[in-house]
Amino acid sequence: MARTAGSDGERTEAAIREAAVDLIARHGYEAVSMRQLAARVGVQAAALYRYFPTKEDLLFTLMREHMEALLGAWSEARPATTDATTRLATFVANHIAFHIERRSQTHISNMELRSLSPERLTFILRLRTSYEKELRAILRDGAEASVFDLDDIGLTAMAVIQMITGVIVWFRPDERLSVEGVTQTYLSMTMRLVGATTNRETQHVHAGTRLRA
Amino acid sequence: MARTAGSDGERTEAAIREAAVDLIARHGYEAVSMRQLAARVGVQAAALYRYFPTKEDLLFTLMREHMEALLGAWSEARPATTDATTRLATFVANHIAFHIERRSQTHISNMELRSLSPERLTFILRLRTSYEKELRAILRDGAEASVFDLDDIGLTAMAVIQMITGVIVWFRPDERLSVEGVTQTYLSMTMRLVGATTNRETQHVHAGTRLRA
Repeated sequence: MARTAGSDGERTEAAIREAAVDLIARHGYEAVSMRQLAARVGVQAAALYRYFPTKEDLLFTLMREHMEALLGAWSEARPATTDATTRLATFVANHIAFHIERRSQTHISNMELRSLSPERLTFILRLRTSYEKELRAILRDGAEASVFDLDDIGLTAMAVIQMITGVIVWFRPDERLSVEGVTQTYLSMTMRLVGATTNRETQHVHAGTRLRA
Repeated sequence: MARTAGSDGERTEAAIREAAVDLIARHGYEAVSMRQLAARVGVQAAALYRYFPTKEDLLFTLMREHMEALLGAWSEARPATTDATTRLATFVANHIAFHIERRSQTHISNMELRSLSPERLTFILRLRTSYEKELRAILRDGAEASVFDLDDIGLTAMAVIQMITGVIVWFRPDERLSVEGVTQTYLSMTMRLVGATTNRETQHVHAGTRLRA
């Protein structure tokens, strides 16, 4: 504990999480040991267990907080309007901005469901479902108001989420492509996918508002 | 070697690959040892090294063959026509059918790029690029012939691939949803995404032909 003497518990816990995200994204959850993680953080293994009694507690905490942060970000971004097009544009822009900032956490959340115990898996899947429900509600409202033209609300929701989460697989901001530019193109593709009738100028304004916020 | 005495080398190699795909998809590449794999197959570790001198040789073989099989399947499915809509519908149906049959291989191919040496990573990424080029060529031809209406060919290609590969994350055939039904809905969503002008009946016929083939 010598190296962390004087630092407070919250800082140590944050350091553990950060190191865990990096190691697990790089090597996979099963391949990472608590001893290796302690060495990376510069504490003894015993100190780690005070914060996370088991390795699975640590994984579960990372995955739960990732989903809670996503739900929290959407809850803050969600516009007051009932207009489905505005809500969908905001959902997409928020989703892309959130995941681009959290590539490693996203990879862990997608890959390591296999490593959770059944009860914890159920817990995480419930959080995911409540997030997906938000999108399904937007799609349903848009279809009912005839501003969207969809075949299947559930499948369209999955398609949109896969498409926009996929941005983090290949996208690195550079001279040619900015986060805002990529978001605009994905907004436009999402609107086509849902058969939106709104013109593109409107979408642009909404996305811009969100991205500058 | 007692348990495999009498079996021929090809059968042993196939058994090694099958066990490796299952173990790596379940635990992650780094967490799986050659010893564990040998035990699963029922051979001694020394026998494994005759087929795959290193663990990375095995991973690389699995990933290379996955991409070569995908390119091969597309090469067989590719229609002779120049019509971009037919080609796109065939591409999507082939992609979904291929990946639904190979969930574990697909997860490994997407997750374990991190575990390849730089030269081998480059090799696999080149195979991916040549596959993506096929889709970009279809999108470009369709845009030039004004049957598609796209903002960005490269981004649309990535969006389509992420969207249709995403099927394997959540889809399990059941009473409500068949592979053919899901493929139809994804074909319809792809056509919206690319701004296709063709009517849905045409797409239906093309997809049906492919799925029955």
